[in-house]
Amino acid sequence: MTFIWKNGRFHTDEHLISVCDRALRGDGVFTTMLCVDGMPIHLNLHIERISNNAKILGLPLLKDNKWEGELKNAVKALIEKNNATKGQYCLTITITRGIAERGLATPLQTEPTIFIRLAPAPEHMPPLHAIIAQSVRRNEGSPLSQIKTLNYGDHILARQEAENAGAHEAILLNNAGHVTCFTVGNLFIANNGQLSTPPLSDGVMDGIIRRLWIERGSITERSLTVTDLETADGIFMTNSLRGIIAIGRLGDKTFGNADTPFDADIHLG
Amino acid sequence: MTFIWKNGRFHTDEHLISVCDRALRGDGVFTTMLCVDGMPIHLNLHIERISNNAKILGLPLLKDNKWEGELKNAVKALIEKNNATKGQYCLTITITRGIAERGLATPLQTEPTIFIRLAPAPEHMPPLHAIIAQSVRRNEGSPLSQIKTLNYGDHILARQEAENAGAHEAILLNNAGHVTCFTVGNLFIANNGQLSTPPLSDGVMDGIIRRLWIERGSITERSLTVTDLETADGIFMTNSLRGIIAIGRLGDKTFGNADTPFDADIHLG
Repeated sequence: MTFIWKNGRFHTDEHLISVCDRALRGDGVFTTMLCVDGMPIHLNLHIERISNNAKILGLPLLKDNKWEGELKNAVKALIEKNNATKGQYCLTITITRGIAERGLATPLQTEPTIFIRLAPAPEHMPPLHAIIAQSVRRNEGSPLSQIKTLNYGDHILARQEAENAGAHEAILLNNAGHVTCFTVGNLFIANNGQLSTPPLSDGVMDGIIRRLWIERGSITERSLTVTDLETADGIFMTNSLRGIIAIGRLGDKTFGNADTPFDADIHLG
Repeated sequence: MTFIWKNGRFHTDEHLISVCDRALRGDGVFTTMLCVDGMPIHLNLHIERISNNAKILGLPLLKDNKWEGELKNAVKALIEKNNATKGQYCLTITITRGIAERGLATPLQTEPTIFIRLAPAPEHMPPLHAIIAQSVRRNEGSPLSQIKTLNYGDHILARQEAENAGAHEAILLNNAGHVTCFTVGNLFIANNGQLSTPPLSDGVMDGIIRRLWIERGSITERSLTVTDLETADGIFMTNSLRGIIAIGRLGDKTFGNADTPFDADIHLG
């Protein structure tokens, strides 16, 4: 898309990040949502989450939350500016600690770097082929595993492992051997008509669709093992861009009845 | 410093990173070294390590390693260009996967973003006051814990915890409760004249000074517990900018004999 919004202004050159920005040490948070005909879906939930995530990381945002309203206005202005008022787009908001001196010390005064960008919406996906990542575990001992930060290195490794195996996605286990999530989505299993998903405390990102599905349905939050995956009737991935997607194959096992649940369009608002 | 080197050119505007650069998902590696009177200390070891780190992360570098020689030339040219030929500076090389489409899929073709920058050398440090981080664990289940990637989120949390406690540094444990490292350095303990340091497999970054010290001295690599810290005669942090620094205080315990070992200047080459 032509225009990017950053700290109050529209820009056309995408080189907006300083080499001294703490973004380059994973010191920031982001959120991605679907835009349908100019409407950012679940915008309030995304703003609320990124605001909470920023607090957990200790980012220097204003305390009165007035910036949240300004951010919503900026989202709408950017959609207008890009003429993205028809069709589906993907909108990402990123907040970093901003430009700081070298080193990890918390800077006394920093203006956060806040930017918003639009990208084409992802294409329709077939039932996914997934593997269980062997190369990397998710860190249940970090509160950052429950929020959406810029630290995606472990997921990038897992995704490469999936691609090398000819699969679309990887499921990450934590260091205790419990199931956590996919590289870009939360995980649910169906068994005898009962849906289950791992608790956040196992090192699970607090996904918006995960949250909505738990609110709407009778979902059990419990730690899941590899055996739970292998004996499941169905496995589903959720994320804000795609809603609920069935896993068609996990390793050697295929899931015959890979229909997505009734509220697969939960991501459309 | 005035000039930054990026992909073959000198720049004066520090806004060199695209909002679409995979750096913003932790998809890159870096290394930091001391420059003394224009000499980048242990440059070959740093280039060798960042090259190996880039391979582990699967970054799209040329296979013939010719870029390593070009990078060394760029380092020297940048020092000249900035007139940093007298005194001490800190030099950082960063390599990211480069600009890619949204999402975590490995891009088929990307030119890596490679940049080098200089910053003032850190000031002299007193014997450090450290704590054991309670807020976050290090991920022993990720190979990225052994290399120097852009994913410093967990260490940023630990560092904030240290600062909030009035301390300089935090020691991170892994999920198994073993000692790993400081937020910006490796950890050694002295006990009855014997030095020990945790093995990389506990989730320890492969530091250059750690490696040199192990080569030079009779250091035991073994898993360390909190009790090992509490009963140690001395605790030391190593990093490439500061060499070997004594910990003067850990929580409530002070270390009377906090003299640094004889080769404290190992970082000076």
